[in-house]
Amino acid sequence: MEREFDVVVVGAGPAGEISAGRLATRGGKRVAIVERDLVGGECSFYACMPSKALLRPAEVLNEVRRVPGAAQAVTGSLDVEAVLARRDEVIHDLDDASQLPWLEDRGIELFRGSARLDGERRVVVGADVLVARDAVVLATGSTAAMPPIPGLAEAGAWSNREITTAHESPRRLVILGGGVVGVEMAQAWASLGSKVTVIEALDSLLVNEEPFVGEEVGRALLELGVDQRFGTKAVSASVGGEGPPEITVELEDGSAVVGDRLLVAVGRRPLSGGIGLESVGLPDGGFVEVDDGLQVPGLPWLYAVGDVNGRSLLTHAGKYQARIAADRILGSSSARAVGDGRGSPRVVFTDPEVAAVGMTLAVAREVGVQVLAVDLPTGTSSGASFVGRGAAGTSRFVVDTARQVLVGVTFVGPGVNEFLQAASIAVAAEVPLSKLAHAVAPFPTRSELWLAFLEEYERQAGVSVHSGS
Amino acid sequence: MEREFDVVVVGAGPAGEISAGRLATRGGKRVAIVERDLVGGECSFYACMPSKALLRPAEVLNEVRRVPGAAQAVTGSLDVEAVLARRDEVIHDLDDASQLPWLEDRGIELFRGSARLDGERRVVVGADVLVARDAVVLATGSTAAMPPIPGLAEAGAWSNREITTAHESPRRLVILGGGVVGVEMAQAWASLGSKVTVIEALDSLLVNEEPFVGEEVGRALLELGVDQRFGTKAVSASVGGEGPPEITVELEDGSAVVGDRLLVAVGRRPLSGGIGLESVGLPDGGFVEVDDGLQVPGLPWLYAVGDVNGRSLLTHAGKYQARIAADRILGSSSARAVGDGRGSPRVVFTDPEVAAVGMTLAVAREVGVQVLAVDLPTGTSSGASFVGRGAAGTSRFVVDTARQVLVGVTFVGPGVNEFLQAASIAVAAEVPLSKLAHAVAPFPTRSELWLAFLEEYERQAGVSVHSGS
Repeated sequence: MEREFDVVVVGAGPAGEISAGRLATRGGKRVAIVERDLVGGECSFYACMPSKALLRPAEVLNEVRRVPGAAQAVTGSLDVEAVLARRDEVIHDLDDASQLPWLEDRGIELFRGSARLDGERRVVVGADVLVARDAVVLATGSTAAMPPIPGLAEAGAWSNREITTAHESPRRLVILGGGVVGVEMAQAWASLGSKVTVIEALDSLLVNEEPFVGEEVGRALLELGVDQRFGTKAVSASVGGEGPPEITVELEDGSAVVGDRLLVAVGRRPLSGGIGLESVGLPDGGFVEVDDGLQVPGLPWLYAVGDVNGRSLLTHAGKYQARIAADRILGSSSARAVGDGRGSPRVVFTDPEVAAVGMTLAVAREVGVQVLAVDLPTGTSSGASFVGRGAAGTSRFVVDTARQVLVGVTFVGPGVNEFLQAASIAVAAEVPLSKLAHAVAPFPTRSELWLAFLEEYERQAGVSVHSGS
Repeated sequence: MEREFDVVVVGAGPAGEISAGRLATRGGKRVAIVERDLVGGECSFYACMPSKALLRPAEVLNEVRRVPGAAQAVTGSLDVEAVLARRDEVIHDLDDASQLPWLEDRGIELFRGSARLDGERRVVVGADVLVARDAVVLATGSTAAMPPIPGLAEAGAWSNREITTAHESPRRLVILGGGVVGVEMAQAWASLGSKVTVIEALDSLLVNEEPFVGEEVGRALLELGVDQRFGTKAVSASVGGEGPPEITVELEDGSAVVGDRLLVAVGRRPLSGGIGLESVGLPDGGFVEVDDGLQVPGLPWLYAVGDVNGRSLLTHAGKYQARIAADRILGSSSARAVGDGRGSPRVVFTDPEVAAVGMTLAVAREVGVQVLAVDLPTGTSSGASFVGRGAAGTSRFVVDTARQVLVGVTFVGPGVNEFLQAASIAVAAEVPLSKLAHAVAPFPTRSELWLAFLEEYERQAGVSVHSGS
């Protein structure tokens, strides 16, 4: 049946939902949304949400153990079953019923099934043809990339989906990839009792961040007993063993790692194949290229938001893009995405946590900004003396010295995700240091790190931020 | 003996120390600092630091008990002795030896004793006369105000000094005053086993903050068993009882409260009496009036920083003023304090915590700003679902609608002190909402409260922050 809508959104993950919601609520548009899997998307069921649910109990338990007087109240250890039960609650046992009222309240019509573009403004879902008067928004997301390593399929290699929803701790877990998914899952399952090995082809964990990030997270994982193999690749996987199957991963250096489960976390690929892109003259598969209005060049009716456009594979970046795409569709030609991309705020929920925004020092130099980097222990303030004892981690503030603004900030330390918004605002709004100096950090809070930064910057640059002298 | 210095600083609390340090380090000045009590000041030994040490263990233990999977590991309760031992460690058993190297490293000469101004640029300390070539900085701080209630002295009424350094939990603690000291000490000692009663003359706790602040903190204290009496004053105190002395506080409504210890926390008075202010033509006692350069009008060589000037009785405000006064003395005539005063960032370390910056809605209306207030549950984000279960609290964002900037923000919730810097930067730098919209809060963190604020503001104001339409 042919049905007409103002906008058809393909994919009901966070980016798709936010786009649809904003179009319906702010613009009064008639919106259809198509989902072939769970409404709420990868993030809600198989990524951010279950990851955080697996990580949080150990994080808070670590913290209470560092605080004298409270530590004495802890006599037991993590209750793995309770952690997994809470995780199941967070992901609603993989049932998306709780997500539906949000769509219904906004009058958004849900079509379940696989969508396929069928020429301009036409989306086919099963027997339905959805015709979009204004626009089609692609928000199909991404899935775990599986490298061409022989034996992966036979070994029943897991992606983020299986590991975040696992119902017991693998006795031995082997992880290919030391990026965000790799380190978060290493942390989570090691704390839940698995013996974990991480295999990373490059020389460190979390290579896109400041060099101290990978070192400090690696040190913490080592203390949890996580074996880390750097500079070597997996060349094959095989299954064997008497009794329960055992997975052997052969590395290019000739060594081998044996485990009960194998997680592949080497990157993501866009879910853009087989969705009819070729019917509108685009390549089938690959990231869908967009401009800063999230519009596909040459096709003024087609938008792509979230992972599928490859600008920044982060849920919040997708939600941000979704808002801007919706505003564009509603006629705001000035709405433009500038807060996503490579410098988008990002958090790794390990312990210590990593929170960063903007450029690393290396990237700033690469793009030719004159910078001064101020490094400080994250726990440099009096306030930090209350957040665990000896809680370590480094912070780096990268200053554009010509403009006297921050272009990048990285924090490593317990719970630093809550620090990030301050840095994100300073970077996004290009707040001059002379103004940051009037945002007085309360004593005794860890935010006095900002004061320490300003004082150390003044010392290194030989200036006063209060007078510019 | 007469000794000459560039600058003489009177009082070695945080404000005095920071002033002295900046003058010595940045300006190469020869600096003397005078202290009659402990180097490090009230804050380090008798206020912020020991308070936080008493509060933190219960805070983190409350949090771990709210997290399924971790909660199961907690079988005991707070170890009061360990909490007090840690508090003693934080205040270095009231020994300031550990503070001295900081002064020594900066070549600052310490004079121990009571200082008295003796005419222009002259400070007498015992047998020494310190002559200041450039300036004298007063940083004598404040002390607990004792109201003229009959019997207080006989009842051995405590101030912040005794309660923060107490070596056992009073069985029954009566607190006069429901301000910051009152509620923090009520929270701390109730969690350490005391039966606490708070008596507040006005109608709520923390009256200078948004109305929901006192309500929400009061509710939490009630759950801890803290009895709260509002709208009534203490008219007398007396000591009696068989066995251990018992304090009875009579209230003006005819009722009485009985306790083993009585804390008076009704405000602070400046330590400006008997320090020779009359020798330079100023009144003896009272707050020392200063301009935004922290300079005493008419006496270009005299500065006052910290509590003694009455601008903002907060350690961090004093440290901020200290930096600016130092820059002034070093010749930076443009350095000006704008981040202290009534809207200075502030935190109450209860559970839930209170963190606020800028104007409350009532103050903004009072001063005639056209405002729109957006209220949200602090736990409105997906990220908040991991920070305890059912952790409550309200946040309010006060927007100047003409200029589209935030003029005040208040957060109530667990651990919200770490949220505040973002708001402080937004308020201090007057970051337009259209720029705040590009500071993308990471998913799933509690900072998505910022996104919820923008969306709710857009809804209420009928605009898009991305396009101004």
